[in-house]
Amino acid sequence: MAPRTTTARPIFVVAGIGAGAGTGASAARLFAANGFRVAIIARGADRAEKLASEINTSGGEAAGFGTSDYTYKSILAVWDTIKSYKWPSTQESAPIRVALWNTGDPLFKGFLDVSEQDLNLSLEGSVQGPFAFARQAVLTFRENEVDDKGKRGTLLFTGATASTRGNTWTSAVAAGKFGLRALSQSLAKEFGKENIHVAHAIIDGGILTERRTVDQTDGSKDPRDTLLHPDSIASAYLYLANQDRSAWTWELDLRPAHEKW
Amino acid sequence: MAPRTTTARPIFVVAGIGAGAGTGASAARLFAANGFRVAIIARGADRAEKLASEINTSGGEAAGFGTSDYTYKSILAVWDTIKSYKWPSTQESAPIRVALWNTGDPLFKGFLDVSEQDLNLSLEGSVQGPFAFARQAVLTFRENEVDDKGKRGTLLFTGATASTRGNTWTSAVAAGKFGLRALSQSLAKEFGKENIHVAHAIIDGGILTERRTVDQTDGSKDPRDTLLHPDSIASAYLYLANQDRSAWTWELDLRPAHEKW
Amino acid sequence: MAPRTTTARPIFVVAGIGAGAGTGASAARLFAANGFRVAIIARGADRAEKLASEINTSGGEAAGFGTSDYTYKSILAVWDTIKSYKWPSTQESAPIRVALWNTGDPLFKGFLDVSEQDLNLSLEGSVQGPFAFARQAVLTFRENEVDDKGKRGTLLFTGATASTRGNTWTSAVAAGKFGLRALSQSLAKEFGKENIHVAHAIIDGGILTERRTVDQTDGSKDPRDTLLHPDSIASAYLYLANQDRSAWTWELDLRPAHEKW
Amino acid sequence: MAPRTTTARPIFVVAGIGAGAGTGASAARLFAANGFRVAIIARGADRAEKLASEINTSGGEAAGFGTSDYTYKSILAVWDTIKSYKWPSTQESAPIRVALWNTGDPLFKGFLDVSEQDLNLSLEGSVQGPFAFARQAVLTFRENEVDDKGKRGTLLFTGATASTRGNTWTSAVAAGKFGLRALSQSLAKEFGKENIHVAHAIIDGGILTERRTVDQTDGSKDPRDTLLHPDSIASAYLYLANQDRSAWTWELDLRPAHEKW
Repeated sequence: MAPRTTTARPIFVVAGIGAGAGTGASAARLFAANGFRVAIIARGADRAEKLASEINTSGGEAAGFGTSDYTYKSILAVWDTIKSYKWPSTQESAPIRVALWNTGDPLFKGFLDVSEQDLNLSLEGSVQGPFAFARQAVLTFRENEVDDKGKRGTLLFTGATASTRGNTWTSAVAAGKFGLRALSQSLAKEFGKENIHVAHAIIDGGILTERRTVDQTDGSKDPRDTLLHPDSIASAYLYLANQDRSAWTWELDLRPAHEKW
Repeated sequence: MAPRTTTARPIFVVAGIGAGAGTGASAARLFAANGFRVAIIARGADRAEKLASEINTSGGEAAGFGTSDYTYKSILAVWDTIKSYKWPSTQESAPIRVALWNTGDPLFKGFLDVSEQDLNLSLEGSVQGPFAFARQAVLTFRENEVDDKGKRGTLLFTGATASTRGNTWTSAVAAGKFGLRALSQSLAKEFGKENIHVAHAIIDGGILTERRTVDQTDGSKDPRDTLLHPDSIASAYLYLANQDRSAWTWELDLRPAHEKW
Repeated sequence: MAPRTTTARPIFVVAGIGAGAGTGASAARLFAANGFRVAIIARGADRAEKLASEINTSGGEAAGFGTSDYTYKSILAVWDTIKSYKWPSTQESAPIRVALWNTGDPLFKGFLDVSEQDLNLSLEGSVQGPFAFARQAVLTFRENEVDDKGKRGTLLFTGATASTRGNTWTSAVAAGKFGLRALSQSLAKEFGKENIHVAHAIIDGGILTERRTVDQTDGSKDPRDTLLHPDSIASAYLYLANQDRSAWTWELDLRPAHEKW
Repeated sequence: MAPRTTTARPIFVVAGIGAGAGTGASAARLFAANGFRVAIIARGADRAEKLASEINTSGGEAAGFGTSDYTYKSILAVWDTIKSYKWPSTQESAPIRVALWNTGDPLFKGFLDVSEQDLNLSLEGSVQGPFAFARQAVLTFRENEVDDKGKRGTLLFTGATASTRGNTWTSAVAAGKFGLRALSQSLAKEFGKENIHVAHAIIDGGILTERRTVDQTDGSKDPRDTLLHPDSIASAYLYLANQDRSAWTWELDLRPAHEKW
């Protein structure tokens, strides 16, 4: 049998897949279906591996990488593991071309109920973890050649309503999400010149998940009119990854048709 | 009588094609290549018809509709003409599904050099014309059924750097472009509930045209790193038109990789 | 010949006083009480003169200048009248140091109910009138010496919630108010270098007037917790006029304590 | 001798005075001159006490409170110390009415040069410290009666250019400053209803200090045209503290007249 001569398929790294029914998992599946190997970072190796296994069974190629938390040091470490991982199909490492930071627990509490620990977790998931993730992504992308879209890599961040609006129940989550947005804008400006694309998506609405399959405010409506489907968000990420360097996006919002905003 | 066997292809209406080498013309060609009939509104019937002819020769289907100006009344009138137009291929009118307002002359002048007429032209192209255009689009989309993406229609607006930043040379253009952005946001909020999608693209950089094929600030760079290619902008519009109702975008920015911002 | 012994008191020009119980009238009274002559521009000479008379009776110095509308040409003309006006107390013209544009009718209508005329009135009051007003103010301020605060003059604009948010009932008013904000930012950037201060106040809430003396949503509350008092807004304008060139403000928001935003 | 029956003078708490020549120190002096007792929090008891001593010598009343750092726990602790402090003049504690968070080291570094420690320091000074400071301020203000301005207290935060714009050299400082802005907006919305006023000032330019007394880019200009004088910034804080509940400000920007922005 002739050796496989084609270049290794590029890698998509995603951090944060929740319970496996949300945006991160949809993105993993969609990028796998579009020719990417998928490296899945999740708190808990079992969740990461379960999703990887599902993708591998469906004809894709994925591997799970558990981490105990999203601290700066843990994120540096798990990324190093991904970089040295030998994919079974080719026994070689492949270029990482797209990375998505998709975590940061929402925390809805009145300000006086926010503990120091609550705040620290919000900052870890939305600022410190992403700084480490971005450092590894930028250093990795720099090793890549410019591809046919004129890019060395695409770094994506998931934002939220709280990325641009502080509100009565969101002091801690907004402090983190504003910080993430600042990071993404700083990176976009600093590394655009090196053909590294950084984008930030503001998810402005509730997400349709297994636990939330019906619009809870008005059962008469189609849920897709009132909640964001994770597959639709994933499509936006794939679109962003495919934008060429001549007209790419730093920030877009995504919301369901009937959202009040 | 033979039954109507195929659904009429949907129509894409674009207002503003400049000299035929810019964003509007690229969008006309791209939507034509993706199954849309294209109705081209331009100041000067000759320019509109020249582009329509080019698209028809290439296997697409387009028609030109000249207007002498972009006043409220002229835009109402030209849209009526489009609605009653019988397309040669089927001798029937077809559903208008996507509309793009892509005009509004940039005017770079110090404030004291802006004449009353300069200001009025800016408002006509960026506010009064778009209000008439949006009225017709919304009324037309309301006649449509919700399609397989969950939408009745998509209304797109081309913004600019001056859409969010007033500056020393842009008082008149910014007054108009801020106003256009306000209109698009108001419409997005009011008509999202009717599954009409309204989006606004901030074009933040110079555009690569026939007159501007090389980056004028640094000849050593690939122009696609420093200028927006109209085809890349057009791709963003096609993506927006294809977003489904579960996760659609009101606003995104587009800029070249090496833009300083 | 007797030497000129006292400098003429500076003039404050205000355009827009509503029915005489709102922000413009409060500002006129407050600036009069703080050493300014007040030139009052209003639609309808009678209203302007009534307020001027009240101020003159109270020991201030004011004059009314009626205009039939807020078109570009009318605003140019009324400003010329003010510039050549001989104030009774000194029979001389005095330096205009502060100017406030405080008009632009709020218009709350669904988009499809906005007529071409509605839109044009909104643009006239929020964009075209202000462009003419700003032109006259800038040209006038340029004739002034830099004062002890390091300024040649202060140009103030009254904005609203609709200055930064389009919404379902505000397409026309937002198009105008966004445009006004763009103008004010462009002017601030262009003329700061000439020590002309331009500021924009976002009035984000309902205003306490004769017709609206009680909070209509909750009678148990103190109206000053839920509505903006015109005198409090006027205080902000006086503060802005008194800021020195070392640390001045382009934009601030003003809202009552209990406002939901 | 008759006992002093008058109410104790209110307290102004300021955290962050730099080397004693910047905004925090100017604010301390200005509030002292306007009837406030001043509690000065600084890293290093000596600096805090030196400024307190200067104010006491000038006829004001101040006390210094050193802290070794701006961690959450340290800020909680130092505030407790202030609350239980017995002012010499009356041997009683007095109501804290205004509090200003004025610290957070600027850190200008390319993203890849930002260490984990750099980031943590930025978050400590701009997010974690302020969360603790705000908690103490809100709990303290809640004990106050509504005063003649309709307020229980005013909580002020010093922001910067990096509060709204990420940039190539500011990833760490912007992450912190965006977070601080989010906190201030969340607080403003949550506690306005309790007549607690929260405001955020965006200082958009260089500050005139002992080390920076001359505009370094153009010696021919008056430094007050190109740099912010700390006394002018302090005036803005005093104005904000004096705004009444009917029309108060969440956010304003402050910049010198000739700033390019």
